[in-house]
Formats: sequence, structure tokens, C-alpha cells
Amino acid sequence: MAAVGLLPLTRALVDIGTAVDRRFETMLAVPGDARARLYQCMRHAAIGGGKRLRPLLVVATADLFGVERECAERAATAIEAIHVYSLIHDDLPAMDDDDLRRGKPTAHKAFDEATAILAGDSLHALAFEWLADPATHADPFVRAELVLEVARAAGPGGMAGGQAMDLAAERMPFDLPAVTRLQQLKTGALIGVSVEAGAILGRVPPEGRTGLRGYAHDLGLAFQIADDLLDAEGDEAAVGKALRKDADAGKATFLSLLGPERAHAQCELLAAQAVEHLRSYGTEADLLRALAHYVVERDR
Amino acid sequence: MAAVGLLPLTRALVDIGTAVDRRFETMLAVPGDARARLYQCMRHAAIGGGKRLRPLLVVATADLFGVERECAERAATAIEAIHVYSLIHDDLPAMDDDDLRRGKPTAHKAFDEATAILAGDSLHALAFEWLADPATHADPFVRAELVLEVARAAGPGGMAGGQAMDLAAERMPFDLPAVTRLQQLKTGALIGVSVEAGAILGRVPPEGRTGLRGYAHDLGLAFQIADDLLDAEGDEAAVGKALRKDADAGKATFLSLLGPERAHAQCELLAAQAVEHLRSYGTEADLLRALAHYVVERDR
Repeated sequence: MAAVGLLPLTRALVDIGTAVDRRFETMLAVPGDARARLYQCMRHAAIGGGKRLRPLLVVATADLFGVERECAERAATAIEAIHVYSLIHDDLPAMDDDDLRRGKPTAHKAFDEATAILAGDSLHALAFEWLADPATHADPFVRAELVLEVARAAGPGGMAGGQAMDLAAERMPFDLPAVTRLQQLKTGALIGVSVEAGAILGRVPPEGRTGLRGYAHDLGLAFQIADDLLDAEGDEAAVGKALRKDADAGKATFLSLLGPERAHAQCELLAAQAVEHLRSYGTEADLLRALAHYVVERDR
Repeated sequence: MAAVGLLPLTRALVDIGTAVDRRFETMLAVPGDARARLYQCMRHAAIGGGKRLRPLLVVATADLFGVERECAERAATAIEAIHVYSLIHDDLPAMDDDDLRRGKPTAHKAFDEATAILAGDSLHALAFEWLADPATHADPFVRAELVLEVARAAGPGGMAGGQAMDLAAERMPFDLPAVTRLQQLKTGALIGVSVEAGAILGRVPPEGRTGLRGYAHDLGLAFQIADDLLDAEGDEAAVGKALRKDADAGKATFLSLLGPERAHAQCELLAAQAVEHLRSYGTEADLLRALAHYVVERDR
């Protein structure tokens, strides 16, 4: 099986970044009324930054099933909107209190806290508006399933629940199973639904998604371990946000529980496992395979 | 046409309050893990309080079209979850900075700011999860349309956009058309979709919803003027929240722009107009008619 090298993956990441930016540009056009500042804040946080890992997962999976690009990119943009809203709220003073995100001032620093809260809430609602719109898919069953799965991944059974666990981790000791569960909710759920969305758009029934779910599960954990390593070993200027905050807060992470050597090894093992879950797919899944390796490599 | 008196309406409000509380009790069951505090915060804000005006609008409209109670109550609870999330976020220190809501400490006072932000976000996502769930309606077209309309009403083209305008109103003078537009977004959109949801569940096509939309539009404005009057003339202990904050902030409101006499008159006129929009319905719409009068009366 021919592996897709970093070059096609890099091109795919640039392409999806451009596509998502273009969609945000249109869908977040600034209105000529008192809501202008709200839209400017959404645009500040959403446009021109980030790895666009989740959108690429959506379109790369959708491509496996011949989904129209228009449908895939709309769903990808909606899921990225959820991710951006979560970053805006996570960065708030009452949460992680971060000043820098994607190399720019965070939303509440560039605007103000109230506008940042509302910009997050607005992107959250817009994501579901975009998913439920007939333009995303002609079949209402597909639209309703997309909404259901993305809402589950975003809410207290997913991302928001993981974030709440993260707050609790500052107050109580977390062991490896607890940190794993926390991360599966906090970042794994949205990564999982990004892969699942491609299959939903392609009308793949749930029983046909087992391999993809396994891939997303292992990819999500590998991603988080790589994030921990990046947090400990990375360069703030290159990463574009404040680092080493978890260690300073004394919070349990994969890194603090495994140590750097086992963390690196575990990250590579998970990426290999993720790829193994794609064994029933041919070269058409090479982009997903390359993504798994990229997730491990990005901490180097 | 026989008017339904306050007694049946009062009973209907108590009944829907009980039904919504029961559903929140089940759907927000506290998990036995580190998310317990998040769920407790959601329950604190969602259960046992509020007029449940929006849920009653959903079920009263759904009843016009013979919608199953189970479907109507699920949609009603989802829309109330959106309302509750907006109250939690509006009360935050960076927004209206309120300590009291529905006679209880606000979410961030009873818990903490981070938990309150996440509880709002969680209810927001849960609302769409509940709407998109097959249990809400067997027809995916209905579920997708419900999500689409509720997301539009909640997002920057509705509630969140109105809230952003409200922030701007502290910085610039708003005239009557601007305040009207602000309130149509901030409270009118969610009241409107509460009525619309009943019709969507009843598979009434958009062209058959004109009367109901007119009703909801006028009811929403009447509700807001009554709210302004209550804010100026009401008793804090009875209302259960801090009052007279708009006047103190020098913000333009219907009351400040119209004065009390014209505000009272306009409120009654709008309620009468709202009722007039229901002329094609018989006694089955008496509860909606009584609601319009109740909205005016509650400021007395």
C-alpha cells in the first residue's frame, strides 16, 4: 500500500484551510447594524488560523464515499465553527485565561469578554443552522443525524463535559483511565464526529462505520498525547499560544502520568493502530493514514 | 368566541411547568463522574423556576394540530433549554452581572463562572441533541426543520444577535425602530420559534403559518414592553431578580422612548392585535388568546 507523503497532506491541509476560510468569509459577512462587532469577533476567531484538522477529517472521509464537495465542506465548516466556539470560551478569563491563540490575541483580548461569550454562542448556534440547512444535504435524515451526532459530541456527553472534567482535574487527582476518559470527551468526541460526519454524508449505516470509529478513537488519543508533548517541549512562538500551563497548574496529563518516553511511544503506537483500522480501505484512504502520522510528527 | 379565563391558563402554566421540570429531571440526571458539578449547575438553572412561557407556546400551538404530547413536550423542553442557557450567560459578570434569577442565586453565584459558562454551552448543545433525536418526531424532515428554525432563532440572526445589540445600546443612542429590532431579535425570535415549532411538529407548511407568525410577532413585542414596565414598576422580591438596571444604565427601552402611558397602551394594543391574528382558529386557540392577555396583565 503506497503511503501518501507529507507533501500531498500538506497540500490538502492548505486547500481545506483556504476552503474553510472562504466559507467563513461568506457565512460570517458583517451586517450593517449594531451586530457588526459580534461578527467581527467571530471572524477574528474563525478566519485565518488553526490546523483545520477537523475539516480535513470530514472531507477526507467524505471523499471515501463520493460525497459532493459542497456538502462535505459545509459540514466541515460547521464542525470547525464548534471547535472555534470552544476555543473562544476556553480562553476566557474564568476558564484558561489565555491571551494568545493561533498567534493572535484571544477573542476577549481583541474585543471584550461579553462579545467573546456571544461570539462563541453565535458560532455554536450557526453550526447547527448550517448542518440543518438543506444546502448541506438533500436528505433530511442525513441532516438530522449530522445534527444529532455533532450535538452529542459538543455537549456534556462530549466536549463540554470533557472541559468540565478538566476543571475538576485541578481540584482532584486524575489517574490514567480518568485522563483518558477526560480527553476522549474533551477532544476525542469532536475528532470522532468529524470522521463520522463524512460517513453520515455518504449514507454509510452505523454498522459500516466500525473501522472509521476505531481510527478516530486512536487518532484522537494520539493527537492529545502529541498535544501534551508539544505543550511540554514546543516553542511558544511557533505554536502561537501559551505553553506549559498544565504542568504549572499541577494537572495530571498523559505526559505527567506516562513520562516523555512512554508518551512518545504510546503516541506512535496509537497512530499505527489508527492506520490499522483502515485496512479495509485502499489507497483512497491514504490521506487519513498520512494524517495519523502527521499528528505524531507535529510534536517534533 | 368564548375567552378562556385566567384559571385554565394558570392551570396550563402549572401543568407545563411540572412537565418541563420532570423532563429536565430525567434528561439532566447527574452522572457519577467528574461532570457531576456541571450537571448540578444545569439543574440549578433549569429546574423549578420561570414562567415556562415558551414551552406553553409550543404545546398550545402543537395542540391546534393534534401533535402527540410526547413530541410537543420534548420540543418545548429543548426550546426552554435554549432560554435557560441564555439566562445563564446573560447573568455572567461580563454581561449583565446579576446575582439573582428566578428568586435564586444565578448559576455563576451558586457555582462558579467557568461552570456556569459550560452549563450554558451544555444546555445549548443538548437542545439540538433533543430536537434532532428521533424521539422528538418520527419524520426526519420535521426534526431538521425544527433544528434549523431554533438555531436561527438562537444565533446571531436572533437571540445572540439581539444580545449583542443590547451591549451596543449601552454605547450608542437607540431610537424606537432600533429598540424594536433589538427586541425582535433578543426575545422575539425565540418566542416566535416556540409558536412555529408547534406548527412544524404538526407538519403545517410555511404558507399556513402566517396567522401564527403574526400572533407570535405581536406577542413578543407586547411581552417585551410588559417586561420594561415590570422592570420599572415591579417589586424585586416578587419578580425574583434585580430590577431598574436599564434605567440606571441609561439604556433606551420601549418605556424610556414611549413613556409609561403610551407603553401601557401599546402593550394592550399589541396583545389585541396578537389575538386578532388568530381569527381563523376557533375555541381550540383560546389558550393562545389567554396567553396574550396574561402577558399584558402580568405587569399589574
